[in-house]
Amino acid sequence: MGISLDELQLAARNHGMPLEALRYDLTPVGLHYLLIHFDVPEVPSDWRLRVGGAVDRELSLSLDDLRSLPRMRRIVTMECAGNGRARLEPHVTSQPWLAEAIGTGEWGGVEVGPLLREARVRAEAVEVVFTGLDRGIDGGVEQAYERSLSLQEALVGEALLAWELNGEPLPPQHGAPLRLVVPGWYGMTSVKWLERITLLDRPFDGYQQAQAYRFRRTDDEAGEPVTRMRPRALMVPPGVPDFMTRRRFVPPGPCAVEGRAWSGVAPVVSVEVSADGGATWASATLEPTPDRWAWARWTWTWDAAPGEYELRCRARDEAGNEQPPEPEWNVGGYCNNAVQRVAVTVRG
Amino acid sequence: MGISLDELQLAARNHGMPLEALRYDLTPVGLHYLLIHFDVPEVPSDWRLRVGGAVDRELSLSLDDLRSLPRMRRIVTMECAGNGRARLEPHVTSQPWLAEAIGTGEWGGVEVGPLLREARVRAEAVEVVFTGLDRGIDGGVEQAYERSLSLQEALVGEALLAWELNGEPLPPQHGAPLRLVVPGWYGMTSVKWLERITLLDRPFDGYQQAQAYRFRRTDDEAGEPVTRMRPRALMVPPGVPDFMTRRRFVPPGPCAVEGRAWSGVAPVVSVEVSADGGATWASATLEPTPDRWAWARWTWTWDAAPGEYELRCRARDEAGNEQPPEPEWNVGGYCNNAVQRVAVTVRG
Repeated sequence: MGISLDELQLAARNHGMPLEALRYDLTPVGLHYLLIHFDVPEVPSDWRLRVGGAVDRELSLSLDDLRSLPRMRRIVTMECAGNGRARLEPHVTSQPWLAEAIGTGEWGGVEVGPLLREARVRAEAVEVVFTGLDRGIDGGVEQAYERSLSLQEALVGEALLAWELNGEPLPPQHGAPLRLVVPGWYGMTSVKWLERITLLDRPFDGYQQAQAYRFRRTDDEAGEPVTRMRPRALMVPPGVPDFMTRRRFVPPGPCAVEGRAWSGVAPVVSVEVSADGGATWASATLEPTPDRWAWARWTWTWDAAPGEYELRCRARDEAGNEQPPEPEWNVGGYCNNAVQRVAVTVRG
Repeated sequence: MGISLDELQLAARNHGMPLEALRYDLTPVGLHYLLIHFDVPEVPSDWRLRVGGAVDRELSLSLDDLRSLPRMRRIVTMECAGNGRARLEPHVTSQPWLAEAIGTGEWGGVEVGPLLREARVRAEAVEVVFTGLDRGIDGGVEQAYERSLSLQEALVGEALLAWELNGEPLPPQHGAPLRLVVPGWYGMTSVKWLERITLLDRPFDGYQQAQAYRFRRTDDEAGEPVTRMRPRALMVPPGVPDFMTRRRFVPPGPCAVEGRAWSGVAPVVSVEVSADGGATWASATLEPTPDRWAWARWTWTWDAAPGEYELRCRARDEAGNEQPPEPEWNVGGYCNNAVQRVAVTVRG
């Protein structure tokens, strides 16, 4: 593998979560992953959220207006759709994530559904477009960052408009003053720096919906939209690291291994761990999740004898989705939930 | 350039500051750069700071003990000594920073000097070693992360032991519960997760002092220790970016360019900007710094006509240090303060 200067520019500005932070139920602010397509924008001092398009009553709401509505808090695990991209062969050029594009936040705000009902959505509306203040060029097209949800998903789903993270005001890099948070979905859907919600009477064909974020096996197929997070388990790499290689060093004896697991499709029902490169698997102990779309903690005790190992872990969800041993290659490098592998030396 | 998997592992876990965040006087928590050599460590619940070695009175202090001492707050710009490393040719393998390994925080805590006086430093003491809780292997040596200051620097300098960042409790990734902050120095000196201060009667020869962080032109020279930050100016890249290349696109007409400049040696006295690849330079307007070791804001208005440009900026400090047009290569890839270059297209 060789990462280009362009990719390094993205890696240097977009933050991953160091995997030892899997220890925390809630990811501390500053450790949650960040994928900022364009720039963190400047927000006008007279910012308001506008709701328009196929509605009978247009809304224009200040943050104080939103704060006067019933507030919800939800603990949500979020993962970038491109997590794992840098492990794909042949190489896919874009933000080069390994496994760190994750985080869990407690998001506070209002539900999207009741707000849309306030605007009296017209009968012909079928999709809801969320538009951010961040602008730039992607695939040759100048655009504001925007993504849509089906009206059904927006009305009855669990999407929030959030102005709080972990009990504090939303930081600029997470979308202040207001962002969308769609529990269970990959992060591209959770539009940051939200300025406009538009009801459409037709499917949204913007770049980030119709071109990007589609699972295509070849360049010329239309592909399927990327939506909900596939199941994944990740472990806190045990022991101590080598600075440069990140190889782990563990003393012999019982070694407490812990991690988190999630799926955006259905609850995780099992996590298994292997210390022999996938030949045999042991069941980890899975703890209850603090919220429907939050990761679950898991633990396993490894009886570590001197030698060289590759630890692996894998999750399965209630809908029967399992992590594959190898990545499923696709043009955009999305949804790579292949099992994590951690190289460990046990020193006698 | 091709970045290896090992380097990408570091780039994915160590955070840079996206350069649009140069807009903020204080870097919001979560945007300040982070270089974590090993892992963010687990902190024992009975944590105390111990002061020992060549002292007449050993100290063992809880965070409450420290909080009862007179508190200082200082606004400090911090930069990783490896900032700019990925621009060096031939390539230097380590954390591959471009220009984003910076940030400015308001650090709150106690001064180091008075605390050392409390411990009654013995006459034979010459250096002060600061030891963190973070452990790992670097250059083949298992170690806790530790660095020293001369006794003189520690006693009369402006170093703080900080438990606050931007008025909030120190986050885990910045060294909670307590870290060293040495204003004006590159970041490797500001040991995080501090657990021990040791007075030595001889120079400290630990790995991070004697092997790493030395400016060597060849492998076999002893080199000079890396200490204070060289002058640097950086600009907020103007206009909007292309997602993948980060090239900037600006409309024609007056374009407000802004940035920050700092030096750890002496106050910055000038910032100059070039829009013609360094052939001619204009003076930017330099604003006062909010604190002695904080960056200074600068502004410049560019009359942008359609075309392709490379913007540059450069700082000079009161001691006469200037930014070089090209990097000064060295074995460890430290202190690269070559002028920033930003590719811009002005579209008619």
